[in-house]
Amino acid sequence: MNTKNDTIVAIATAAGSGAIAIIRLSGPLSLETALRFFKRPNMPLSASHIESHHSYFGSLYHNDRLIDEVLMTWFKGPKSYTGEDTVEISCHGSEFIQERIVRLFLESGVRQAQPGEFTLRAFLNGKMDLSQAEAVADLIASQSEMAHRMAISQMRGGFSNEINQLREKLVNFASLLELELDFSEEDVEFANREDFVRLLEEISIKISQLIQSFQAGNVLKKGIPVAIIGKPNVGKSTLLNAILNEERALVSDIPGTTRDSIEDTFIINGYSFRFVDTAGLRESTDHIENLGMARTYDKIQQASIILYVCDISTMDDKAINAMLEEFNTYIRDENKHFILVANKIDMMEQLPTHLREMFDLDSVFVSAKRKENIHELTDKLVSIVQKTSLDSGVMVNNSRHYEALSQALAALQQAESGFKSQVPSDLIAIDIRRVLYFLGSITGEVTTDELLGTIFSKFCIGK
Amino acid sequence: MNTKNDTIVAIATAAGSGAIAIIRLSGPLSLETALRFFKRPNMPLSASHIESHHSYFGSLYHNDRLIDEVLMTWFKGPKSYTGEDTVEISCHGSEFIQERIVRLFLESGVRQAQPGEFTLRAFLNGKMDLSQAEAVADLIASQSEMAHRMAISQMRGGFSNEINQLREKLVNFASLLELELDFSEEDVEFANREDFVRLLEEISIKISQLIQSFQAGNVLKKGIPVAIIGKPNVGKSTLLNAILNEERALVSDIPGTTRDSIEDTFIINGYSFRFVDTAGLRESTDHIENLGMARTYDKIQQASIILYVCDISTMDDKAINAMLEEFNTYIRDENKHFILVANKIDMMEQLPTHLREMFDLDSVFVSAKRKENIHELTDKLVSIVQKTSLDSGVMVNNSRHYEALSQALAALQQAESGFKSQVPSDLIAIDIRRVLYFLGSITGEVTTDELLGTIFSKFCIGK
Repeated sequence: MNTKNDTIVAIATAAGSGAIAIIRLSGPLSLETALRFFKRPNMPLSASHIESHHSYFGSLYHNDRLIDEVLMTWFKGPKSYTGEDTVEISCHGSEFIQERIVRLFLESGVRQAQPGEFTLRAFLNGKMDLSQAEAVADLIASQSEMAHRMAISQMRGGFSNEINQLREKLVNFASLLELELDFSEEDVEFANREDFVRLLEEISIKISQLIQSFQAGNVLKKGIPVAIIGKPNVGKSTLLNAILNEERALVSDIPGTTRDSIEDTFIINGYSFRFVDTAGLRESTDHIENLGMARTYDKIQQASIILYVCDISTMDDKAINAMLEEFNTYIRDENKHFILVANKIDMMEQLPTHLREMFDLDSVFVSAKRKENIHELTDKLVSIVQKTSLDSGVMVNNSRHYEALSQALAALQQAESGFKSQVPSDLIAIDIRRVLYFLGSITGEVTTDELLGTIFSKFCIGK
Repeated sequence: MNTKNDTIVAIATAAGSGAIAIIRLSGPLSLETALRFFKRPNMPLSASHIESHHSYFGSLYHNDRLIDEVLMTWFKGPKSYTGEDTVEISCHGSEFIQERIVRLFLESGVRQAQPGEFTLRAFLNGKMDLSQAEAVADLIASQSEMAHRMAISQMRGGFSNEINQLREKLVNFASLLELELDFSEEDVEFANREDFVRLLEEISIKISQLIQSFQAGNVLKKGIPVAIIGKPNVGKSTLLNAILNEERALVSDIPGTTRDSIEDTFIINGYSFRFVDTAGLRESTDHIENLGMARTYDKIQQASIILYVCDISTMDDKAINAMLEEFNTYIRDENKHFILVANKIDMMEQLPTHLREMFDLDSVFVSAKRKENIHELTDKLVSIVQKTSLDSGVMVNNSRHYEALSQALAALQQAESGFKSQVPSDLIAIDIRRVLYFLGSITGEVTTDELLGTIFSKFCIGK
């Protein structure tokens, strides 16, 4: 990774032609380079007259040939994205003009930026830490409300703060421990062992929580799994089609039409849900259908939300009570959310009022076929996600961070057990240093060129 | 076309995700709308404190939920692209964020912009005339240096100036003519008939020139046609492949391999060339080959530049002199440029020095097979285009303008012949009014909602 302080240029807006495009220069020669080609008729501009953060209208010329009328804005470092002097040229969005302007600057000695190099410079200049820089890439890639929110939170530094707090606490104790090593001949103890063990435990718990949040974070990023289950022919596939608003699943009146499970991701109010339509739950002599049912049980295990569908039009009060009892055994699983979906209300002349009373709040009466009350169901799904703890607190959603946290935890546990089994301080100090190293690698306190190369090569050019 | 003075919003950068995207608001509520969501921590911004053309860093919030960190720039009308108050929001280029921000503004009462509506407003607010507005769309669509240059020149108003000058001259005389009509009882002549006829002729010539430039302009836009001709098996297809730098044409040692003509467009130094590889010129008994040769002669007719290829390795001085004589008969056509391409220098041990002397400047020695000196040839092509008058003067490249000019010319000619055959002034005045109308329709002095609708619907949204 080239981290020299030269001047770089790249197109910063999306590829292709649009009304406007932005060419961005960053580095000590940004303004000088731009001003070599930027002219204002009757109003010559010299670098000393230009104000930072002010947009100037003018024209870019190459040897008296007009290339475009543009807006030029100078961001004087360190008050810029990269922390260096930066110039943004806002031009007409023709691809020809974009390339022409970049070539103009390249020919005058600035260098084409590497992918992510603007953000790399922001990191190197202390405008953001490494985890925040990674959040920028996540932010640009975000496709759903949740992915966006997690990236925004990480970019704002919430996660970095947590890590830095853990690290600071540990550094204090670690330095006492290192001090002991200097005086090892004299057998003194600067660090209170009991306090230290308590601290290690506290940090272990915190790190474990963060590690656990990775799974939840990943779920939100990839889509919250929702299994649609129920007896055969209650309309599970029709419900899936109604939710997705397309004919995704094969439906028929024949019980057992869906033999394998069907999956589809759908974004509702910015939350990404991964719906799984399952084979109906019943004893069957059909071998393939039985295989499908085995997969259904797997899918139920993996789901965060379960829609239990029944055909309310064929059930008398007794059948309903039996079903509610069965349903109640399900909802004891605290890690899952259950919604009872009473389907086929279109088959009933009127919904008996006492029926609604028999069901508790987590149920909804729909007609999948006529797409009635489907909105009520999707609103319920969204509110479940909003109510969960997912919103609050810091979440890990980057596998590099997950990896570093896992390694920090392993080193921490080694230090803990070392204390308990009276391992010499110098060995424990090594474990603690490893914990500090892994925590520091998340925010970029410790880093290598190779690591930076890997992280920033995943960025788009121009960021 | 909605031309009300409401506030509009659109994404102004290319579709898709990039490092940065720009959302543009235009209209009286632009700043107010942006400030409803834009916050700077500890530094509240009120409209009265905001400077025009200054970029402010801050965050967009929707109900306390952070949407993005952005740069906001206000352009106070009339010093803006549209001539109205305009706000540009520069955000992270995720599609999710772009759509989220646009939705934010739409929900607060501004309207999604129609295609080209920003430029339409610029036209309606007198920031540019209609022909300049059309040039903006051409500029964004421009793919080659020439298309870009024509659009830039038109955007700068060169063409509009010519039209306006013609129109002004005519308006003066026309008003005298109209005055005569008011005093028609008295049989006075305010307008000098001789001067008038001279003026009409002068304007006719000018308009004819502009009409003629349309063809040349279109050629430059679509690619300058270059025909590759010569006897069979001199290496025409190999030369085409060498120029295009790919295996486009089928080549073999068998004379007559190319039977139909092959076309391909290639941009060299920003000029678009349309190369036509032709069947070799020879008498043949092969019916299909003869059909191909008929097409070859057509292609030669249509070409602006002709590459006459010969196999120099097989020619003695006598053959060369005969060929040069034949070649000289060709180059009498003043509307075409000829280049003699002496091919297969790889087949000769050494190029005899006297050979170079036999040829004049418009020849080049190449090995198409080994791709030797191909650059010399393409440089020659570029310099021919640069030398022609194409560069100088105003050119028509828009078919709407071509149409309007043709109709203005027809009306003008009718007025001229009317004068000559003593047609009453009131009828001539009608013709003159028509000329003024058609000229005025080019720059938008006279216009209809329908015309504006047609023109601006071709723009992209956001421009």
